[in-house]
Amino acid sequence: MRNTARWAATLGLTATAVCGPLTGTALAAHGTGPSALYAPSALVLTMGRGDDAALATPERAVTLTCAPTSSGTHPSADRACAELRGIGGDFDALAARSDVLCNKLYRPVVVTVEGVWQGKRVSYERVFSNECVKDSYGYGGVFTF
Amino acid sequence: MRNTARWAATLGLTATAVCGPLTGTALAAHGTGPSALYAPSALVLTMGRGDDAALATPERAVTLTCAPTSSGTHPSADRACAELRGIGGDFDALAARSDVLCNKLYRPVVVTVEGVWQGKRVSYERVFSNECVKDSYGYGGVFTF
Repeated sequence: MRNTARWAATLGLTATAVCGPLTGTALAAHGTGPSALYAPSALVLTMGRGDDAALATPERAVTLTCAPTSSGTHPSADRACAELRGIGGDFDALAARSDVLCNKLYRPVVVTVEGVWQGKRVSYERVFSNECVKDSYGYGGVFTF
Repeated sequence: MRNTARWAATLGLTATAVCGPLTGTALAAHGTGPSALYAPSALVLTMGRGDDAALATPERAVTLTCAPTSSGTHPSADRACAELRGIGGDFDALAARSDVLCNKLYRPVVVTVEGVWQGKRVSYERVFSNECVKDSYGYGGVFTF
């Protein structure tokens, strides 16, 4: 047991020594230091009931960061980032999937995206006729939160 | 060794069993599910050179979430959230510390905050005459990124 513990401690120290500097680099590249290696990307997405973001109370709000790795409170950050990269950050390019059937009930939801995508400011708003329609856009990524 | 491994595996499974449901609850409360327990808070803060956010390229951009726990790419999320709670989300209430000396060089930086604070939309912009002045506001929290 004692040997195992000593071995585990050594492994832990080695891991710290190896990964420590890497973590430091990753943080510097995150856009937090003055020497960021790439343009920042950080977004807030909100969802509210209604057809106007100025009037709708934001019911849900999530953050999404796509560099250096996918992170944030977005429930499927990986997929959302992949989707955003695929469309070059152009939210209007997200199209509805043809395999999803939604009813025609009009209960509008409004989605907003604010922040920065690859160094450019984003201020986007889009209204969907109901939540099913919203979720049918893209492949369960960006707007599914 | 074999016994230790078995013991470790058991401990791991127990931890999963105990922590799994807790994680699930935390996620649901995060504002990602339809049954969020509190108003969402999710912000993106940016910093750029110049005196107008519309013209300044965002040099840094970080995310900040304050509920259920402090998170995001903000380098001091804990302190920033504590500060924001202290001023009730009113960014204008952040005052400069008197113990910081800055030169009078005019190299303006502009900070923006977009997103949602406790269920209310935030769209804030503030110009500081230089970066030292920016960092002198608050206690190394919100604007120090």
